[in-house]
Amino acid sequence: MFITKFAIPEVIFGKGAIKYLSQCAGRLGAQRVLLVSDPGLENAGWVDVIKDQLKENALHCAYFSEVNSNPRDWQVHKGANLYKESGADVIIGLGGGSPIDTAKGIAVIASNGGRINDFEGANKIMRPLPPMIFIPSTAGSGSDVTQFCIVTDMERQVKMTIISRSLVPNISIIDPNLLVTKTRELIVASAIDALAHAIESFLSKLASPFTESQALLAISLILENLQSALETRDPDALEKLSIASTAAGMSFSNAGLGIGHSLAHSLGGRYDVLHGLVHPILLPVIMKFNTVACRSKMAVIGGKILGPRFCSDDILAEQGIAELQRLFQGFGVATRLRDILPDDRGLEHICKMAVPDACTVTNPRPVDWTDLLGICEAAW
Amino acid sequence: MFITKFAIPEVIFGKGAIKYLSQCAGRLGAQRVLLVSDPGLENAGWVDVIKDQLKENALHCAYFSEVNSNPRDWQVHKGANLYKESGADVIIGLGGGSPIDTAKGIAVIASNGGRINDFEGANKIMRPLPPMIFIPSTAGSGSDVTQFCIVTDMERQVKMTIISRSLVPNISIIDPNLLVTKTRELIVASAIDALAHAIESFLSKLASPFTESQALLAISLILENLQSALETRDPDALEKLSIASTAAGMSFSNAGLGIGHSLAHSLGGRYDVLHGLVHPILLPVIMKFNTVACRSKMAVIGGKILGPRFCSDDILAEQGIAELQRLFQGFGVATRLRDILPDDRGLEHICKMAVPDACTVTNPRPVDWTDLLGICEAAW
Repeated sequence: MFITKFAIPEVIFGKGAIKYLSQCAGRLGAQRVLLVSDPGLENAGWVDVIKDQLKENALHCAYFSEVNSNPRDWQVHKGANLYKESGADVIIGLGGGSPIDTAKGIAVIASNGGRINDFEGANKIMRPLPPMIFIPSTAGSGSDVTQFCIVTDMERQVKMTIISRSLVPNISIIDPNLLVTKTRELIVASAIDALAHAIESFLSKLASPFTESQALLAISLILENLQSALETRDPDALEKLSIASTAAGMSFSNAGLGIGHSLAHSLGGRYDVLHGLVHPILLPVIMKFNTVACRSKMAVIGGKILGPRFCSDDILAEQGIAELQRLFQGFGVATRLRDILPDDRGLEHICKMAVPDACTVTNPRPVDWTDLLGICEAAW
Repeated sequence: MFITKFAIPEVIFGKGAIKYLSQCAGRLGAQRVLLVSDPGLENAGWVDVIKDQLKENALHCAYFSEVNSNPRDWQVHKGANLYKESGADVIIGLGGGSPIDTAKGIAVIASNGGRINDFEGANKIMRPLPPMIFIPSTAGSGSDVTQFCIVTDMERQVKMTIISRSLVPNISIIDPNLLVTKTRELIVASAIDALAHAIESFLSKLASPFTESQALLAISLILENLQSALETRDPDALEKLSIASTAAGMSFSNAGLGIGHSLAHSLGGRYDVLHGLVHPILLPVIMKFNTVACRSKMAVIGGKILGPRFCSDDILAEQGIAELQRLFQGFGVATRLRDILPDDRGLEHICKMAVPDACTVTNPRPVDWTDLLGICEAAW
């Protein structure tokens, strides 16, 4: 095995864990925090919960909420200005991947200067970031535990992947109670995003036993709990999805992802589609494409999907992918690219933009843009 | 599930990883380091490897090596004096559990003052410690990733358990090449210590899915690789034991241990026996004692030991423990307490000292000293 790294934040996990936020901020020396969130979290009441708690603990709070789904470069720069003007010393990100990635971008610009575009790719961040605490409100992005940050370059219309050890926050507070207020569509999209994180990172060229064990935990928990989380909003099932998302984040942060995410970033930059809705469409097709390069690992995934059975790796891999496709169809989400894109004229451009994405490097099977086009056509 | 924490250091793992030490120390702001190790590591040449590397990178190095197996309170205080006198700013611990626990103790006293005995128990360390980097030379203690520190109180003749989040180092550099120079006895004792960490923490009252996945990874890897690591010193098998020890450390640091370690600490404080040689004797007896409180989890462990088979939890649990006992006998280590103790007159005292150990709290079945005496008698 090659030399490998495994770095995660301190994780505080459980229903009600949000109550430890001020204590954690104090531990990091906070006196004035910048809270980054979005209108959805405001409406659900969680922004007020946090503001009240910070106030009770005499922590000054500046608030930034100009965050889109697929956050934009100019939003990061505007937030960094607020960080500086407010004299903040700790950044708190509350939300799905978008507010948390915005918070990461703000931290980068506040401490390193420049434009967020300067940091695209791996290991471009040179100066230490301000202390960060993240509180995820979806069970999907995993951004609260990872060294990834995704921001849209509005001029090039592409989602930039920024990867750095320093993007791992100090503390991630994961409170499954925040999931209860989510829509069905957001729960499905988030859970399948987490499943894609787990599967892509399990198959990654940089996977290690430390990441593989977390990836397999995530795969099992999502397959066992997504259905009942959707049907009954069972708090225990939602908690399991939260555990899965966190475990998948620990895995992909350290092992990287694959071409499913390269294509999702490229599609998201061009068409502003909800990130998690791309994976039910692409994941099975990409698993078929990758199988030749990682047959025995694909069989392990097949075994998780199908349960234990005595058959060859080939059959386990193939039948696992087919069953996954059936499961996705059962969730009532789009399963063809044509269902979410206006037309297929942009596909060549999408695929060419996806090749240099940082996630392509760790894909188990090498690709060029024509391979990606073949995948998109198979998924059309 | 209750609110749980999962905190580990940044882990750099792999053959040759030791070459990153100076770079890591630089990242933590080091100019003058205190290196803590012992004569065994000196003889194996590793201390010189590190001193040379630090010198090449213009890092001043003070060196402390007055470390016993079962390190002593006065050794910690002497090392803390050297830390201060040498003007060190980063502590590097190189070795098995003993030099690393000594390094932790030095870090506590250097930053918090007082006597090491003042910090016995959980969460008694109030001020931040100096940056720490640990390089384990055995695949067993896991101390390089954990929030545990074990130091012997020479007056009371007891191994004190000190637990604090701040004892997790900044970075753990795990290089399986260091294992090649170990004796057969040390490899067995270390691996069975790691196995005890994995099993006890898997059964702990504070176990979470994050710790359980690492514990099960460790159990599988040790059972699959210990035999060939001993027979052939196969570097791949030694690497797997290293992964297992690290994974077990991640698990027990966050989930805690059980009465096997309470008794091992008590025995080690009184008789100075090699810690890892206590577990092959006590672990199966304690697993039998605990089964009533955690039958289905004991069956999961049984399944790992025996491989998949269709039978009841009761039978899996029972047959797994019996098979583990047979495996230990095959390794040629002592399997009865009478083989390692001079007589049985001290047992009552040993058991009374073990009850207040921090590891007793997380044992799945509550105990008093008479329960522990029953276990020691069954293992006599």
